[in-house]
Amino acid sequence: MLMEFVKDFKWKRGMRVDELADGYSGLGFQSTELAKAARIMVKMKSSKSKIFLTFTSNMVTSGLRGFFAQLIRLKMADAIVTTVGSIEEDMMKASGEKFPLGTFHSDDTALHEKGTNRVGNIFVRTASYEKFEGMMRGVFSALYKKQHRWTVSDMLKEIGLSIKDEDSILYQAAKNNIPVYCPAITDGAFGFHAFLFQQDHPDFIIDVVKDFGSILFYVNHDDRKGIIALGGSVSKHHALFACLLNGGADYAVYMTTAHETSGSMGGATTEEAKSWGKIADSTDVCTVIGDVTITFPLAMITALEELRKKGLVKGD
Amino acid sequence: MLMEFVKDFKWKRGMRVDELADGYSGLGFQSTELAKAARIMVKMKSSKSKIFLTFTSNMVTSGLRGFFAQLIRLKMADAIVTTVGSIEEDMMKASGEKFPLGTFHSDDTALHEKGTNRVGNIFVRTASYEKFEGMMRGVFSALYKKQHRWTVSDMLKEIGLSIKDEDSILYQAAKNNIPVYCPAITDGAFGFHAFLFQQDHPDFIIDVVKDFGSILFYVNHDDRKGIIALGGSVSKHHALFACLLNGGADYAVYMTTAHETSGSMGGATTEEAKSWGKIADSTDVCTVIGDVTITFPLAMITALEELRKKGLVKGD
Amino acid sequence: MLMEFVKDFKWKRGMRVDELADGYSGLGFQSTELAKAARIMVKMKSSKSKIFLTFTSNMVTSGLRGFFAQLIRLKMADAIVTTVGSIEEDMMKASGEKFPLGTFHSDDTALHEKGTNRVGNIFVRTASYEKFEGMMRGVFSALYKKQHRWTVSDMLKEIGLSIKDEDSILYQAAKNNIPVYCPAITDGAFGFHAFLFQQDHPDFIIDVVKDFGSILFYVNHDDRKGIIALGGSVSKHHALFACLLNGGADYAVYMTTAHETSGSMGGATTEEAKSWGKIADSTDVCTVIGDVTITFPLAMITALEELRKKGLVKGD
Amino acid sequence: MLMEFVKDFKWKRGMRVDELADGYSGLGFQSTELAKAARIMVKMKSSKSKIFLTFTSNMVTSGLRGFFAQLIRLKMADAIVTTVGSIEEDMMKASGEKFPLGTFHSDDTALHEKGTNRVGNIFVRTASYEKFEGMMRGVFSALYKKQHRWTVSDMLKEIGLSIKDEDSILYQAAKNNIPVYCPAITDGAFGFHAFLFQQDHPDFIIDVVKDFGSILFYVNHDDRKGIIALGGSVSKHHALFACLLNGGADYAVYMTTAHETSGSMGGATTEEAKSWGKIADSTDVCTVIGDVTITFPLAMITALEELRKKGLVKGD
Repeated sequence: MLMEFVKDFKWKRGMRVDELADGYSGLGFQSTELAKAARIMVKMKSSKSKIFLTFTSNMVTSGLRGFFAQLIRLKMADAIVTTVGSIEEDMMKASGEKFPLGTFHSDDTALHEKGTNRVGNIFVRTASYEKFEGMMRGVFSALYKKQHRWTVSDMLKEIGLSIKDEDSILYQAAKNNIPVYCPAITDGAFGFHAFLFQQDHPDFIIDVVKDFGSILFYVNHDDRKGIIALGGSVSKHHALFACLLNGGADYAVYMTTAHETSGSMGGATTEEAKSWGKIADSTDVCTVIGDVTITFPLAMITALEELRKKGLVKGD
Repeated sequence: MLMEFVKDFKWKRGMRVDELADGYSGLGFQSTELAKAARIMVKMKSSKSKIFLTFTSNMVTSGLRGFFAQLIRLKMADAIVTTVGSIEEDMMKASGEKFPLGTFHSDDTALHEKGTNRVGNIFVRTASYEKFEGMMRGVFSALYKKQHRWTVSDMLKEIGLSIKDEDSILYQAAKNNIPVYCPAITDGAFGFHAFLFQQDHPDFIIDVVKDFGSILFYVNHDDRKGIIALGGSVSKHHALFACLLNGGADYAVYMTTAHETSGSMGGATTEEAKSWGKIADSTDVCTVIGDVTITFPLAMITALEELRKKGLVKGD
Repeated sequence: MLMEFVKDFKWKRGMRVDELADGYSGLGFQSTELAKAARIMVKMKSSKSKIFLTFTSNMVTSGLRGFFAQLIRLKMADAIVTTVGSIEEDMMKASGEKFPLGTFHSDDTALHEKGTNRVGNIFVRTASYEKFEGMMRGVFSALYKKQHRWTVSDMLKEIGLSIKDEDSILYQAAKNNIPVYCPAITDGAFGFHAFLFQQDHPDFIIDVVKDFGSILFYVNHDDRKGIIALGGSVSKHHALFACLLNGGADYAVYMTTAHETSGSMGGATTEEAKSWGKIADSTDVCTVIGDVTITFPLAMITALEELRKKGLVKGD
Repeated sequence: MLMEFVKDFKWKRGMRVDELADGYSGLGFQSTELAKAARIMVKMKSSKSKIFLTFTSNMVTSGLRGFFAQLIRLKMADAIVTTVGSIEEDMMKASGEKFPLGTFHSDDTALHEKGTNRVGNIFVRTASYEKFEGMMRGVFSALYKKQHRWTVSDMLKEIGLSIKDEDSILYQAAKNNIPVYCPAITDGAFGFHAFLFQQDHPDFIIDVVKDFGSILFYVNHDDRKGIIALGGSVSKHHALFACLLNGGADYAVYMTTAHETSGSMGGATTEEAKSWGKIADSTDVCTVIGDVTITFPLAMITALEELRKKGLVKGD
């Protein structure tokens, strides 16, 4: 392997995102890791890997939601794994709700009195939740009419088919036949309304056990597999575990603000994953430490530009 | 309110943990928050609050497992919320498996070849997993014989009753009639074996929807409620959501390494929770930033010593 | 003020860096803070503020070194404050030394045996230090011939004038008459060689006290003042203190990986600075959490593109 | 080496700090590192190493100030390296000033109007600074009367001799003949008043170059050397550099909230230091991630109890 050296970074006029990432590759520290992440994402797609894209719900609270939908449309993800807040907020946004931008330094008691809930520097209005609640009984009724026992991924596909919003994750996933897995489907308002519905329809069942089979058999040992894990939580773990049972991922990019020092799932590195066989020993792997709203668009756009040149991504 | 001042900290011979925490109260930065956490935990118990204790599975990988079991025995927790790795590793340890202490800086490829999986500086041997897998078919068969459809918390109680280990979380929870909630029960080897069992027993159902009702009605608006959330993830969120639907928690202590700046659940502060009504506006709250294996025993022991003096905790 | 909302982010082909930052402004979490940082940097320059740019030496180890030099050339910084490692490594690089890119996971004992020193994922060869040491006696001799007592900033200007490298911070600073302050000038190899030289020339004095006056009077109460503080340490504190003594900064952007929770200088926020009068209460301020090698080029390039359009930055 | 295993942690009544640390040794993650830190600190002292204790000024803002003074008195530190804020605040406290405990979530503009400056959750009143300023002219006059050219460490010793406060770092250091190094002595109010004094006494010189020799020759290659570095900054670097020039430290404990991923001095690990020869390859080393106000008293008290039993620490 040729030795690479730190290169003095320089701005040039009208610089494109992929040119910035090219500069990052010789800058050092996390910028170099970010440039590597972009290269690994190009390899994932070029090698026809099945790509698991995992994220936590705060990223759907953010404007990454539209980007995730775009990536599904562009076939940059073959499976989605997330937490239930993502489902709820994707549906709220699809129904026209808007989330105000606020500040990290808010008077939270005052916010509460105004019916405003805070996620970092983003606000979600209680009214948005109420509207969501108003929709859910209809959603469960429609599902129940079709069948009484649903796996999570089938249910989310059915919901996605009913959504009319190009920027919706569920819509694009359903339309493009990309499964959405959500191992803790009841951990939120979705679960509350499922419970209320079940009170009147005791044979309404969300079959999480059967859904394990869906993700397990979605890939096999012979598939090349890639994981892009944004943040930690069960969404990251679930995709890794599905890969582990199928021989481990061949490519892995982790982006997170968590550090490995506390032994958390969020902070678990791609190196640590090798010890488990979650990712194969020879894998192209990379962990980028930083806020995903900054690092992910940057790395993914860089990958998209390269893949577009190679004809592996069409349109935008 | 009287103004408090920074006090010069001083060691004295034979210093007890609660004396250290007393020194922390005047030290500043996170030590002061830690001392406050201990005081809030005393208030939780003194006010007869129902206490939700939530933790992620890495803490059960660690030696906190025995401490959690002890706390249940001492009636310092009225409900447990966790992730499925906690269940699995509690059962492994109850069956006699030991987890080696390693280092953060390991050759992970070499570890993998030796059948050793790493969680930070703790190792879990593949053999421990294999032993666990060997047990699970029997576990599911026994459950199935009793009934075909289980809520998670009922199932975990049933498993707990079959365990013979004073240091087991499931054992102490079952014995003391403390529910264990686990909203992502299939996200791990437990889920894999549930799936294999269901292949032969299609009417075996883990009813996560019904379990939502269990946690929802475990407390009510009139109860005083406390939350001790260690780490983030669905375990923290699930307890908070159950409290939110019942008027919000009256006391809350968060201990985490995550910061609020990325909008994650792990980093979400007790202040932010007020905006949601997850905790009441008047709540005694406190967020302690630091590794839970250090901060939690320290704060909790300080609370236990105080509660023992008040006669609210008996034995040790 | 109009309420702003989260906007679904979307990639478009050939996206430029400033277009990405525009998307960030509606994304939430740290990406929104980063977009704000770019806007504040535009305001600093547009308002003819005197801009203090501060950074720690690891950033000069990285490829940001060339970018800092470019920014001085483009008149985006009116004063530099840094630590002595920056001076040393800028001189090493100016003399042709190259820094290999390595990995965070290295065998540090093996590296040491090979004469390779690690700073994160960047290597600095002992040979580079030896070459630097070879230069220093000549440097001090030349300085001493001119005068025996030097302020730090005068000395660094004199050194800068002797450097022939367009990408050197010291060279561009000297050429453009921009002072470089370094409050801990002896904390490194530079200090060691100064000491050796002083052994033979006891009247050789680096007058740090007099240099305090240089930074103190470099700005005054009537100047508009801006601070861009990258990382923490004495470099950040020194610029803030100079502003405090002159009525506080009018604009401030902090970029750092440190959090406020431990009370460190690195983590001290722009909000906290208001309590000190380090920055004026009405100041446009912003703290961006993340690796500076990623966040700073992104925000600064966005500002540069805008300033170029306004005719406030010429060339590139 | 015998394999060690995770042990279930258990509280017992009246638990002492060293018993807690003993429990930590089998707990995993950072608690295990903390227990290791205590053991290394025992080894430092038992092996008669010269111990460098370094800390940043926020720790003197906190109540650790009295603990540092106690440690000097107990001969647990042979040299102190710190930043100038530590000097200033030690003197303020010695003059009777008290620092209020506040909160991290303050209205900083309102604080500023009340003349209150915030460092995390600690307040420093502007009045305390004014009192300090009132003292400094007298201090410099007295120094100047004795001699016109001072090294930093000689000057700080002279100041220490004039202080009457058992809890003062400068007092205990002077009394016990322990040097205090401060490589950025002018980076604060101390520097400002030195500058004002020099305006009237141009031959008043603080000779930082000569002071480099003081720390350089304070230890030699044959000494066993230990470093306890709390936080990062020039204080950590200066002690490490002095050790590097003397063959590297034999024992090293780093305690910090910073992570290695950004290449900062605060986050640089004990492993990385081996590549530089800052610490010897065979060194007993340990990095503990967490707030120093929590981790340092805990580890140090544990070491003190052990050293007391061995007769290596007398009194308390």
